[in-house]
Amino acid sequence: MAASVRLPAEEMPLGVEIDCGAHELTEAEIIEFGSLWDPQYFHIDPDAAAHSTFGGVIASGVHTTAIFQRLATLAVYNRYDVIAGREIRSLRFLTPVRAGDVLTGSVVLRSIAPARRGRCLVTIAGTLTNQEGVLVLTLEVDSLVRSRLPSGE
Amino acid sequence: MAASVRLPAEEMPLGVEIDCGAHELTEAEIIEFGSLWDPQYFHIDPDAAAHSTFGGVIASGVHTTAIFQRLATLAVYNRYDVIAGREIRSLRFLTPVRAGDVLTGSVVLRSIAPARRGRCLVTIAGTLTNQEGVLVLTLEVDSLVRSRLPSGE
Repeated sequence: MAASVRLPAEEMPLGVEIDCGAHELTEAEIIEFGSLWDPQYFHIDPDAAAHSTFGGVIASGVHTTAIFQRLATLAVYNRYDVIAGREIRSLRFLTPVRAGDVLTGSVVLRSIAPARRGRCLVTIAGTLTNQEGVLVLTLEVDSLVRSRLPSGE
Repeated sequence: MAASVRLPAEEMPLGVEIDCGAHELTEAEIIEFGSLWDPQYFHIDPDAAAHSTFGGVIASGVHTTAIFQRLATLAVYNRYDVIAGREIRSLRFLTPVRAGDVLTGSVVLRSIAPARRGRCLVTIAGTLTNQEGVLVLTLEVDSLVRSRLPSGE
């Protein structure tokens, strides 16, 4: 989307839950992501993982976080004039994520606060839920988004 | 490393800073990771990013987190009998990460607490620092690691 049509922070819908769509995981994707970024045996070695607590490979928490980020970016962030993320607070991995799981993302905009230099600090709460309706990930993210409101300090 | 030689939580070195080695970023890696997991223009489009706040593409925060996880896994986690990550608290993105940056990881084990069923809850503080000595990422992670200590509950 061209920069000229990205909306300012004050156009973001406060308090409304936004469905961000779904992502289906394959074992190949779990192993590929894990091999690159989190090469612990229970993410990359199906034989060893079969004898682990989870009985098979599970997705890296960083991978699950990346899936949330992809869904939230395509459904929400790319509509707005985001500058950058600042902090993820309380990123929780609640349930193991396995091959075949279908994860659905949702986002709620919790607060918008004017910051310096024409920006707002925007706080978003996000979740991923699996195909059984079980929460697998929750997080809260603070980002800077460009704004037309008067600057706060 | 075979499961039989993974060390229990109580063997982890409390309070000692562990150097986890370095990772050099290329623009190609930033764009590839961003295209898959965080397709915002300032991660994937060098022309559009040239006109952004940062003057060029910057790495996704999830990518930077993945780099930390890779370094910490290879240097530390794979030596111990980790079960799973539970929560990342206060994951902060302090400085933009650009192509050509060399990020060095470090880990300090903050606490070990016996939990249920032969496990310990282990809290680790981690950082990534760039080639100029500037902190780019800090985080705290709680993980479950197998233990031979008496159970905590």
